[in-house]
Amino acid sequence: MPHSAIESSSALLEHFRATRARSSFLVDPLAAEDMVVQSMPDVSPTKWHLAHVTWFFETFVLREFVQNYEVFDRQFEVLFNSYYETVGRMHPRAERGLLSRPTVEEVFRYREHVDCAVEELIASIDRCSEADALEIQRRLEIGLHHEEQHQELLLMDIKHVLGSNPLKPAYRPELPGPDASETRPLRMLDHDGGLVEVGHRAGSGFSYDNEGPRHEVYLRPFRIADRVVTSGEWLEFMDDGGYERVDLWLADGWSWAQNEGVRAPLYWRHDGDQHLVYSLAGEQPVDEATPVVHISYFEADAFARWAGKRLPTEFEWEAMAATKLRSGERPTGRMLGVGSDACHPRSALGSDEQWFGDLWEWTGSAYLGYPGFRPLEGSLGEYNGKFMSGQFVLRGGSCVTPNGHLRISYRNFFYPKQRWAFAGLRLAEDTD
Amino acid sequence: MPHSAIESSSALLEHFRATRARSSFLVDPLAAEDMVVQSMPDVSPTKWHLAHVTWFFETFVLREFVQNYEVFDRQFEVLFNSYYETVGRMHPRAERGLLSRPTVEEVFRYREHVDCAVEELIASIDRCSEADALEIQRRLEIGLHHEEQHQELLLMDIKHVLGSNPLKPAYRPELPGPDASETRPLRMLDHDGGLVEVGHRAGSGFSYDNEGPRHEVYLRPFRIADRVVTSGEWLEFMDDGGYERVDLWLADGWSWAQNEGVRAPLYWRHDGDQHLVYSLAGEQPVDEATPVVHISYFEADAFARWAGKRLPTEFEWEAMAATKLRSGERPTGRMLGVGSDACHPRSALGSDEQWFGDLWEWTGSAYLGYPGFRPLEGSLGEYNGKFMSGQFVLRGGSCVTPNGHLRISYRNFFYPKQRWAFAGLRLAEDTD
Amino acid sequence: MPHSAIESSSALLEHFRATRARSSFLVDPLAAEDMVVQSMPDVSPTKWHLAHVTWFFETFVLREFVQNYEVFDRQFEVLFNSYYETVGRMHPRAERGLLSRPTVEEVFRYREHVDCAVEELIASIDRCSEADALEIQRRLEIGLHHEEQHQELLLMDIKHVLGSNPLKPAYRPELPGPDASETRPLRMLDHDGGLVEVGHRAGSGFSYDNEGPRHEVYLRPFRIADRVVTSGEWLEFMDDGGYERVDLWLADGWSWAQNEGVRAPLYWRHDGDQHLVYSLAGEQPVDEATPVVHISYFEADAFARWAGKRLPTEFEWEAMAATKLRSGERPTGRMLGVGSDACHPRSALGSDEQWFGDLWEWTGSAYLGYPGFRPLEGSLGEYNGKFMSGQFVLRGGSCVTPNGHLRISYRNFFYPKQRWAFAGLRLAEDTD
Amino acid sequence: MPHSAIESSSALLEHFRATRARSSFLVDPLAAEDMVVQSMPDVSPTKWHLAHVTWFFETFVLREFVQNYEVFDRQFEVLFNSYYETVGRMHPRAERGLLSRPTVEEVFRYREHVDCAVEELIASIDRCSEADALEIQRRLEIGLHHEEQHQELLLMDIKHVLGSNPLKPAYRPELPGPDASETRPLRMLDHDGGLVEVGHRAGSGFSYDNEGPRHEVYLRPFRIADRVVTSGEWLEFMDDGGYERVDLWLADGWSWAQNEGVRAPLYWRHDGDQHLVYSLAGEQPVDEATPVVHISYFEADAFARWAGKRLPTEFEWEAMAATKLRSGERPTGRMLGVGSDACHPRSALGSDEQWFGDLWEWTGSAYLGYPGFRPLEGSLGEYNGKFMSGQFVLRGGSCVTPNGHLRISYRNFFYPKQRWAFAGLRLAEDTD
Repeated sequence: MPHSAIESSSALLEHFRATRARSSFLVDPLAAEDMVVQSMPDVSPTKWHLAHVTWFFETFVLREFVQNYEVFDRQFEVLFNSYYETVGRMHPRAERGLLSRPTVEEVFRYREHVDCAVEELIASIDRCSEADALEIQRRLEIGLHHEEQHQELLLMDIKHVLGSNPLKPAYRPELPGPDASETRPLRMLDHDGGLVEVGHRAGSGFSYDNEGPRHEVYLRPFRIADRVVTSGEWLEFMDDGGYERVDLWLADGWSWAQNEGVRAPLYWRHDGDQHLVYSLAGEQPVDEATPVVHISYFEADAFARWAGKRLPTEFEWEAMAATKLRSGERPTGRMLGVGSDACHPRSALGSDEQWFGDLWEWTGSAYLGYPGFRPLEGSLGEYNGKFMSGQFVLRGGSCVTPNGHLRISYRNFFYPKQRWAFAGLRLAEDTD
Repeated sequence: MPHSAIESSSALLEHFRATRARSSFLVDPLAAEDMVVQSMPDVSPTKWHLAHVTWFFETFVLREFVQNYEVFDRQFEVLFNSYYETVGRMHPRAERGLLSRPTVEEVFRYREHVDCAVEELIASIDRCSEADALEIQRRLEIGLHHEEQHQELLLMDIKHVLGSNPLKPAYRPELPGPDASETRPLRMLDHDGGLVEVGHRAGSGFSYDNEGPRHEVYLRPFRIADRVVTSGEWLEFMDDGGYERVDLWLADGWSWAQNEGVRAPLYWRHDGDQHLVYSLAGEQPVDEATPVVHISYFEADAFARWAGKRLPTEFEWEAMAATKLRSGERPTGRMLGVGSDACHPRSALGSDEQWFGDLWEWTGSAYLGYPGFRPLEGSLGEYNGKFMSGQFVLRGGSCVTPNGHLRISYRNFFYPKQRWAFAGLRLAEDTD
Repeated sequence: MPHSAIESSSALLEHFRATRARSSFLVDPLAAEDMVVQSMPDVSPTKWHLAHVTWFFETFVLREFVQNYEVFDRQFEVLFNSYYETVGRMHPRAERGLLSRPTVEEVFRYREHVDCAVEELIASIDRCSEADALEIQRRLEIGLHHEEQHQELLLMDIKHVLGSNPLKPAYRPELPGPDASETRPLRMLDHDGGLVEVGHRAGSGFSYDNEGPRHEVYLRPFRIADRVVTSGEWLEFMDDGGYERVDLWLADGWSWAQNEGVRAPLYWRHDGDQHLVYSLAGEQPVDEATPVVHISYFEADAFARWAGKRLPTEFEWEAMAATKLRSGERPTGRMLGVGSDACHPRSALGSDEQWFGDLWEWTGSAYLGYPGFRPLEGSLGEYNGKFMSGQFVLRGGSCVTPNGHLRISYRNFFYPKQRWAFAGLRLAEDTD
Repeated sequence: MPHSAIESSSALLEHFRATRARSSFLVDPLAAEDMVVQSMPDVSPTKWHLAHVTWFFETFVLREFVQNYEVFDRQFEVLFNSYYETVGRMHPRAERGLLSRPTVEEVFRYREHVDCAVEELIASIDRCSEADALEIQRRLEIGLHHEEQHQELLLMDIKHVLGSNPLKPAYRPELPGPDASETRPLRMLDHDGGLVEVGHRAGSGFSYDNEGPRHEVYLRPFRIADRVVTSGEWLEFMDDGGYERVDLWLADGWSWAQNEGVRAPLYWRHDGDQHLVYSLAGEQPVDEATPVVHISYFEADAFARWAGKRLPTEFEWEAMAATKLRSGERPTGRMLGVGSDACHPRSALGSDEQWFGDLWEWTGSAYLGYPGFRPLEGSLGEYNGKFMSGQFVLRGGSCVTPNGHLRISYRNFFYPKQRWAFAGLRLAEDTD
């Protein structure tokens, strides 16, 4: 995860400012009221995100490396700690929406306070010992990736907050709608299998601990689709009774769907004779060429079974995606911000195979540690390893994923019933 | 409930404006964020109250008596209906805090829209038929009492929202603290019992349907305290193991207290060696002379048993209070607003017996209909009668009760476990 | 509650033996498997009842008055205590059905052990001090009434256990079916109201603490039906949308009925085009002349509103019933046993007004203490007083109520949603 | 799964009778009451197991291959279907303990009825077509393995029923206690890793669908312990605060342990200054040399982290176990029955490495399908594949596992919080 060379302090400063500014940009269209609400326990209020990522810098950088650093508010430690149980007490996750204070304005003052102190620290980093400088840089880097992760969560969460409101308010009504009305026919790509290397190659840029160590796995020959599943294909599944046929479903998925009354992807609504879907640009008719998103693992798995196929493993996905990237190339994203107005996945057009930057793809792999996996030391080690039970891996990265998070070894993970991520699926099958 | 004479339209207008203005005054110190949160299912967000009382005028007055009235927003009907099930669909009560929209600003625009239309209607009331004029006036009167009820709820609710926050922000930090440090010794007042008349006397001003008909009840001789129970006396109860002695408690109360971990009144917090209490002015040490409030019926009942006494019935309370009011006199309150800075109950000072305007007093009477009770016709009849199971009556009126609600026949009611009202107790006993 | 004269020891012995024998008779048709099951938290397994009433004699009589009494099994104290929290720890009520041991056979050995010791104590009662003899007699009397109460519960509970089984096994298939096919037209009886005495008259035989003190209440003139509501009338209510019309229901009742999917009385089942009802004799078509039973307070209250009437208060019920009993007369029951094969309420035939021994009648009175109510001292005082919140009073006594429990002052009580008692309703109304 | 050769009908008959007889043998010490209780939703009543395995033969063999077969009771189909959702309606799993009927005696009559019919079918199998004969044989074989699985469940379940009872009754008090008081020091065995074959080899005897296809996996060098973890070692973990140190636990495990108050393995009880453990022979002091069992995956995982090691993957386990079995050898078990009195795992004595027949060992592998996995066709395909989410694999087989289920490729699976299986752990680590 660490990389060896010391970044120049001006590059670091620029990176810091750009990331922090993007968070502000993202909340720009929101009213204060929008930033308070927690529409389900998985969701955090917008202002909580803004404060929590700030708390992260304060706790793991400022309080450890700045002498006489004045903590902004001692009580924020309890309010804005998320899951670092070794750091101290926490406000219960499911009650984040019960806090009207600090107000959004106070949170922004908190951000300014911490930004000032971090920028001063960066400016004076040359006066630190090399060990400290490296560690500060490493932690800032983690902190920035952490903030980027929360930028994606922030968009997922605010979509859920607004999308749960019967008024269906748009986050940014000016965002463009679907980009195509026709779908390219699906083609299965062949892979020979065999021993392949997977995981992050140490020393080749930032990664999380769970992406390594790089290691070999043995794959049987397989085929994997050259695009993801579309909303039109999902409608066929629904029309064919996909949500009513118990034989298509995992046992836990079936009971989940029955208990929750799940009959369509999240954000879909049946109105008279048409299907509507809520996006960050507001509610619109379902566009058949657009990839289906906001489905659970259970639904993805049932669809694949219905289609006579299966989900790829995370290594099959990675092996094939590797053939698509030139050596050392990193995929580019299109997260909302300067120069991008993305708010939903693109349709498969031309040669676009949608491997990166449109949606997270459920794989059939449980989220577990790689052989030889070692979590980071100390509290930062609570980051990834402690979630290794009951979840599945998703690969690729979505239209709301920050650029820096799009990489071939990135392992996202969710419980099989969670749907508020921009997640869909790509089909795979055995080569007979 | 209705009274016969037609109020002058200017008096009506003044009443309408004053009541609506008080709602605005009450939310003045709040941030937009404060007005969104629902800290428990019993609580409603401030902006919900502001919109709901407005919806009441729109639905029961404007839509029925103003030709071509333009509804502000059709969807508000679902969002801001509370429990008038016969009127139509409702947004689930427990999910009111999940709505960030309409924003506070939009709610105020809604209020203005409705205020304009109501004021126009009042101005033109002389042109209506007498029957219509009377009915409009009657409904406006109900609507204003309804808004006043919600003003008390609004203060109860915002106290709960802010008081649940670990930061313990004050609603109005400038409000004065406790007014005394010594308690007058408690004296038991004697009443001879016998046949007494209780309930609202038809034709003597506004009342709710549940306050009548006036009727006779037969009382045995009893004694009732000349003041309410203080926080100091409550501390004695706690020190004597009041919360640990099962023999003092009703069965449902005991299991409630165990399940919820109740060990002190709501808003009390033990910090080191002192007891703190949250009030609308912020957190302060418990003042022993101040009446105890924010207790459940279960706690009040257990305290009375511990004290070797009992709660009065609602009729005992009313019979004794009647001897304290000169004929036709109405008690005056001191709700926060122009000329009052009340935010907690006063101590018993001088001859003050605290019958009205300090706190609601739990009685030992179940909330049921009086003999001959008839609810109002139609949707407005859903107001009171449908809650007649499982609740207990409270009498008196609290420091956050609007003036117009302080009357000897007023019957407030809550479930025996509810604590967020400004409710305490007065002791009674049989005369042997 | 106590009565003064000392019963002869042979009469006491006979009473003891007869009551204990009836419990054995009642479980005769059951398999061991039937006696283990707890079909809902309100229900207790049959063998729990058999052991609990025995534990009562062991704890409150034998352990206190028999020197060197050898407790049968120390662990039974935890298992078979019910709610006497002051006596010690208890096995959780909702987990009574998780205990396979002690087996039914062991429970019967427990009963024999205690029976022997009690019979010896009775035989030697003359050697006790008079104070002790009186107290022993008083406690045995309470214990026998306690066992009789549990005999009714046992039948209610086993009906629920067997009636919940899809196989619908009969408790006693040989029991006779409905006794009539036509209903007498309902007539309203007039009562003038005024000051009436209610409650148990001290010194006139056994009663529970909650039946006194006898006291005066002031009643307005009222009318009350000369028979209870029939299943045929209930079908009219159902056909008229009684379960779908929110305006007929209390708020808590409506939400209960919606959450539980209540659309008919308990034990009714719709099969094709007929309504079936499960009785202790098995499943049969609903007989229209038979009283409706196994309804909640909420349903009874909604029915009365639908019928344009109301439920009587418990004092109206008692005042009218008093006019039906000759002075000092006690009603006779017909509980299953020697000489009776009753297992459901009789239809109103001839002059039978069904005041006693057919079904419990919901009244509109909350279950609270009478003026001057004093619970028994010590653990036995936990019997009745601690349930005085949230419940309603039922009067009369049912076809499974032991004879000794049929008296005009008897106050049964249940939560308004409970339905497994043999409870129905009688209509009342104000005299205009 | 199927094997090709047709078994002789006499061998088949003998196998059938022996398996069915063992079920009867296992319930021999139980009272009827024991066989009714469901002590938690995971547990089924004993008589349900006895009926369910019988229903399996009736449904999948008799009703399909015996002309004019007379179904014993049509309603049993709903009561004793377990999870074959494609077969029809089911009685809810969590309510199996609410059924007192059919009684144990009736269930045994059901078994006799089906046994007769199956034995007749076997006797006449030669008269079937070869396809039918093969299919009948295949289904009987599945049915017998199914019954054997339920024999293990039956013992797990009855242990839970009896062990949850405060009386702690023994299943068979005559069963022998612990067999050793000293533990062999733990030694780590080395494996070189590389490409290894895992999974069931087609054609080599019975297996379930989830054990294949046999395939290659690539392993890094690893070390694995030569025995399982003992109760004494578990006490060290407890003494070292293992249950209080959040850093040792998976996030879901920590919240599970806090919510459930887990502080020791299931069936352990702290009494004064000693630890007691309930076994099928009754409650006894914890024996330090005995393997720890009845722990969750979460606990096993926390222990391994505490010990500075990890759980093996299922393939590491299989690879090392393979080196311990001579080619083609099958491990032998010691399930309770003729010639065995096992009721808890043996200590590691002499050269015993405890790979088979003592306890199930949690592995770090999620329960998912092997590459190329195909479930059986039709309803029987619901057997294993539909549970492939959220569970972990266990290997080895326990002291209550039938002989026929001990094989190197067998994959047991449970949710990570489940503890009522005889499950413990064996440590592993990377070879540096």
